[in-house]
Amino acid sequence: MSRITVAIAGASGYTGGELLRLLLFHPHVEVTQVTSERLAGKFVHKAHPNLRKATSLRFCSLAELEPCDLLFLALPHGEAMHNIDAFMQKGRRIIDLSADFRLNDAAAYEKWYRTPHARPELLHKFIYGIPELHRQEMQQATHISSAGCNATATILALYPLFKNGLVEPERTVVEVKVGSSEGGNRASTASHHPERSGCVRSFMPAGHRHVAEMVQELDLGAPVHIHFSATSIDMVRGVLATCHVFPKSELTEKDLWKLYRREYGREPFIRIVKEKDGIYRYPEPKLLIGTNFCDIGFERDPHSNRLVIISAIDNLMKGAAGQAVQAFNLMHGFPENTGLEFPGLHPV
Amino acid sequence: MSRITVAIAGASGYTGGELLRLLLFHPHVEVTQVTSERLAGKFVHKAHPNLRKATSLRFCSLAELEPCDLLFLALPHGEAMHNIDAFMQKGRRIIDLSADFRLNDAAAYEKWYRTPHARPELLHKFIYGIPELHRQEMQQATHISSAGCNATATILALYPLFKNGLVEPERTVVEVKVGSSEGGNRASTASHHPERSGCVRSFMPAGHRHVAEMVQELDLGAPVHIHFSATSIDMVRGVLATCHVFPKSELTEKDLWKLYRREYGREPFIRIVKEKDGIYRYPEPKLLIGTNFCDIGFERDPHSNRLVIISAIDNLMKGAAGQAVQAFNLMHGFPENTGLEFPGLHPV
Amino acid sequence: MSRITVAIAGASGYTGGELLRLLLFHPHVEVTQVTSERLAGKFVHKAHPNLRKATSLRFCSLAELEPCDLLFLALPHGEAMHNIDAFMQKGRRIIDLSADFRLNDAAAYEKWYRTPHARPELLHKFIYGIPELHRQEMQQATHISSAGCNATATILALYPLFKNGLVEPERTVVEVKVGSSEGGNRASTASHHPERSGCVRSFMPAGHRHVAEMVQELDLGAPVHIHFSATSIDMVRGVLATCHVFPKSELTEKDLWKLYRREYGREPFIRIVKEKDGIYRYPEPKLLIGTNFCDIGFERDPHSNRLVIISAIDNLMKGAAGQAVQAFNLMHGFPENTGLEFPGLHPV
Amino acid sequence: MSRITVAIAGASGYTGGELLRLLLFHPHVEVTQVTSERLAGKFVHKAHPNLRKATSLRFCSLAELEPCDLLFLALPHGEAMHNIDAFMQKGRRIIDLSADFRLNDAAAYEKWYRTPHARPELLHKFIYGIPELHRQEMQQATHISSAGCNATATILALYPLFKNGLVEPERTVVEVKVGSSEGGNRASTASHHPERSGCVRSFMPAGHRHVAEMVQELDLGAPVHIHFSATSIDMVRGVLATCHVFPKSELTEKDLWKLYRREYGREPFIRIVKEKDGIYRYPEPKLLIGTNFCDIGFERDPHSNRLVIISAIDNLMKGAAGQAVQAFNLMHGFPENTGLEFPGLHPV
Repeated sequence: MSRITVAIAGASGYTGGELLRLLLFHPHVEVTQVTSERLAGKFVHKAHPNLRKATSLRFCSLAELEPCDLLFLALPHGEAMHNIDAFMQKGRRIIDLSADFRLNDAAAYEKWYRTPHARPELLHKFIYGIPELHRQEMQQATHISSAGCNATATILALYPLFKNGLVEPERTVVEVKVGSSEGGNRASTASHHPERSGCVRSFMPAGHRHVAEMVQELDLGAPVHIHFSATSIDMVRGVLATCHVFPKSELTEKDLWKLYRREYGREPFIRIVKEKDGIYRYPEPKLLIGTNFCDIGFERDPHSNRLVIISAIDNLMKGAAGQAVQAFNLMHGFPENTGLEFPGLHPV
Repeated sequence: MSRITVAIAGASGYTGGELLRLLLFHPHVEVTQVTSERLAGKFVHKAHPNLRKATSLRFCSLAELEPCDLLFLALPHGEAMHNIDAFMQKGRRIIDLSADFRLNDAAAYEKWYRTPHARPELLHKFIYGIPELHRQEMQQATHISSAGCNATATILALYPLFKNGLVEPERTVVEVKVGSSEGGNRASTASHHPERSGCVRSFMPAGHRHVAEMVQELDLGAPVHIHFSATSIDMVRGVLATCHVFPKSELTEKDLWKLYRREYGREPFIRIVKEKDGIYRYPEPKLLIGTNFCDIGFERDPHSNRLVIISAIDNLMKGAAGQAVQAFNLMHGFPENTGLEFPGLHPV
Repeated sequence: MSRITVAIAGASGYTGGELLRLLLFHPHVEVTQVTSERLAGKFVHKAHPNLRKATSLRFCSLAELEPCDLLFLALPHGEAMHNIDAFMQKGRRIIDLSADFRLNDAAAYEKWYRTPHARPELLHKFIYGIPELHRQEMQQATHISSAGCNATATILALYPLFKNGLVEPERTVVEVKVGSSEGGNRASTASHHPERSGCVRSFMPAGHRHVAEMVQELDLGAPVHIHFSATSIDMVRGVLATCHVFPKSELTEKDLWKLYRREYGREPFIRIVKEKDGIYRYPEPKLLIGTNFCDIGFERDPHSNRLVIISAIDNLMKGAAGQAVQAFNLMHGFPENTGLEFPGLHPV
Repeated sequence: MSRITVAIAGASGYTGGELLRLLLFHPHVEVTQVTSERLAGKFVHKAHPNLRKATSLRFCSLAELEPCDLLFLALPHGEAMHNIDAFMQKGRRIIDLSADFRLNDAAAYEKWYRTPHARPELLHKFIYGIPELHRQEMQQATHISSAGCNATATILALYPLFKNGLVEPERTVVEVKVGSSEGGNRASTASHHPERSGCVRSFMPAGHRHVAEMVQELDLGAPVHIHFSATSIDMVRGVLATCHVFPKSELTEKDLWKLYRREYGREPFIRIVKEKDGIYRYPEPKLLIGTNFCDIGFERDPHSNRLVIISAIDNLMKGAAGQAVQAFNLMHGFPENTGLEFPGLHPV
């Protein structure tokens, strides 16, 4: 079988590098081009030192991009939207890892991104990139927009409860703890090691844009709100979402097991993690770094009607490049975990 | 003026060591004895290497304890309660840093600690140890029970709102991010570096005992509940409490500034931290490590009626030894910050 | 082709877990049994949470071990030596990851391990486990003894210089910076997070046992000594060896490139890392965590005749399980990198 | 007694901030002005969040500087040298924390800094800033040049051996492990958290400029060379120097104790740290963060004639601001530890 030709626009960033790592080892893919304006002409290991000896590819500029079967866009937010026509001419299919085509509704862009969308008429063309929610559409899709990392962790944690209308839709509070790679590869005072090391920084206590995705995907009939905060901690990769929800009527531990098993029992990348003892009782990001897993666990508050749903992902994998490759596999009819078999490391 | 003679029972742990550090440099204190059964006869720097050259004290056993003006108890939970008569004979005054005398109500011990209290008739003798709430009682007190670290961070963040009846009493969700020193100095699999490093561990998603203190101190007329979770992160010292509250009617940013300034404007150890820009916009534990400060900030959710109140402390200082010394100063009529002037380090 | 049946004795530790991770995904291997006395009967993900969903294997006890094609021994030092007859009856071939059969000379055991070897007559049966030095012997071998992690990093860094007699044999100073996983999975005060986090601990300034291996492997005609120190830093996986050597006569940068390329240019797991600029100029452990690479770089001191040779490995991979699988592949005629293709993560 | 008026030129950096922290709490000092071109007009806590509530000082520009008793210069290297006349008009006494006046010999600047010195005729006016070596000169000095952090750690470790001619002068190898605050407060790719976190980066395997200071201060009759490498590790503050030296004739453990006690026994800021057991056997930076201590320990290699001398400092304290305040105290006849009593934290 001939390989699918793939290019990555914007391959010098962390998400682009992670995509490249996965695609270079994907058995059905040939990576033809990777772009970077800043590093055009240089070997990719200049930006991605882990790929030394794995490839002799060099970066090229966007202007040199040639047609390919599938084009991944890993550009800063805003660029895909403004150059989408040109990209559509290069890639028969497109998977965009930016936020540019995540929301179905142009009004939501204005509300959350405070700027009008450049191409609202194209929003409907893109399938929202969480396979567990949109698997069937993806199998037919030509255009997919990857989901935000914090949105992925939160939506997957809450979906079974919201889908089945089991919790009060307005009372959910979610707090994510995130690593520094979420901010990309540009140095700043905020990312300067003496300041960022050891920090527990409330970088977005309210107003995070990923809430728009959560509301869109969890609004299954009734309007919902997610009270969302994000805190940066001393970690490079990883998201832990702690979700506090209030069920409409009591849910026993058995009910919860049943619910999550029914929704996710056959999912290749979701693991229900809930142990009675030991130190791995709940999901933890470091145990799945480098993998495409989303681990989900839960606990009932013995003193109130609160449920705590906990989910963990690697923001560059299930929160970006890994989930994009999972979507790629679905689009092409490959087993969903092709190229995504790495099980993670322990200890790490 | 002659110095106040002070002894520390249980001085080999982290809280005891921190107390000793503070008291050795306190201008009105003479530390007469420090006990440790395990290390009796050894120099204190064997357990507290930072005190090398600061003192030539050695540990003695509890049995060797002699009378003193004030006895600090820094023993494992349960020991103070069972030996309180003996301790009361040694120390004219007592400050207990364990949980044994924190709750006013014996029934609360049974509910949260799942064991009856050994000496319920003594509970009323101990003043709960947060000076910002109990300053006047402390000035007359002979017995004080230090507050829990997570309880201190949460109560101080929420007190102005609850005291003034401004928020819905049942909807508050609090999540604390805590460091490894909260667990004490005993090694375990949970604290083993390859496992604990880089972790984001949901060690207590629900059921944390410190909630009992929060409920007691914030129940200012109407019953309250705090939906509380604690997550361990890769940090040694520090607590960051992120508190999600829902006001009964709108509170503007100006209202909040006014409220917190009115309650805390003259407090020596509370700083309101809320900047419009930069990387120090909200409280952060690492910026106050080693100090007795509780930094408090807030943010309003632009898309809902939620308020996020953020507070940071050093769990061994404002969360334990520092707050105990602050109480000690109040008991003896010293300026509250005596021996507590260290401003913290930056960067760190 | 039928799969090779493999068992791991002592599979609950970090090295055993890493072996298991590699072997479960090795295309020519069937893992038949993994032993742990402590966890017999439990699923392997109880000890290795990254392997959840990757296998349904359970631990068994050593007593239940059945014959297999190849038996990996990942037991504490001393156990292989004392039970080797029983193990030889179970495994037609053996790869031992402990130190028990690393040294060729029983006298060296007495010198460095301060105890006589239990079975000195078997020492010659085991090939020392660095493929870059013993590839041909391994292809015929039935018994291999894995090399120490610090020894591997140091020997690979220095081998080209010593093999060619280019440096003064007695002046070499090596300092390794190591992570906490080198100490295994047993908790202790030394590994307690509040103590171990942020530490730079001179845990073995002199007298490290791995020197015995270095001396054995680098003694290529003339006696050598390696002045070796090991310092623990705040890292879980990884070894960085900084080797200071003094050439007998000047070696230009070109000479060094030529030398290292000649020795290692075709090695699948050695990369020469030496860039003129950027932040990846020299080898760094975090860039190869999870991989079997040994990265090697060098620098000449402009103010003296010193050369600095720098090497980095993952102590659990090229320093233990990865190198053992590389040896396994050589023994069986598989491409050397079978099951070892993971390129590592960036950033991490 | 009236307070000494002090200003800090260049007070927005890490060294300037640390100086300010110390001087604000110094009983004999009044800080009159602190300069920053970038932050002129802003409160100092904008740059130094630990000083919130400790002072209401604002930054001013250099042009606004007024005369004072003593002027600290904490400017980038090169600025002191080029503006020294203007600074001498403002400060009756000067302590410069840059490298500009550290070396006595203009030729050494050309060799190590690769640029001619702007004011070679002034080099002799500045006393090199290590009090343990230059105490008497400091008591008379009007101008002091602070020592480099790596130089301080190395020189103090080696001085007793070199002063007494006990080691081979050309064979010493020193490797320092350093934190990220050494690089100052400017963000760069090298300091970007995802890259810098968890790193073990050979940032200066050879050619470090601080060697010029070591050679100057340790050259006590015979020329010496120090084979020096610096490695960045995941730490904010701290230097650990591991020094490998070769004695001319055997030195027993008793000899070493005697030697170091004789030289340093009365030093207020040097502690000899060498325990037989436990986890605090040798110096460790984290145990002295925030203090002015230099801890020194040693070990003899049982298999060769090597000695390992280990020293630890906080690079911003004994390696910069703390040592400068110690010098300030000496200049003014105050007890050497005035304002420097903080004992450090444990755990941390």
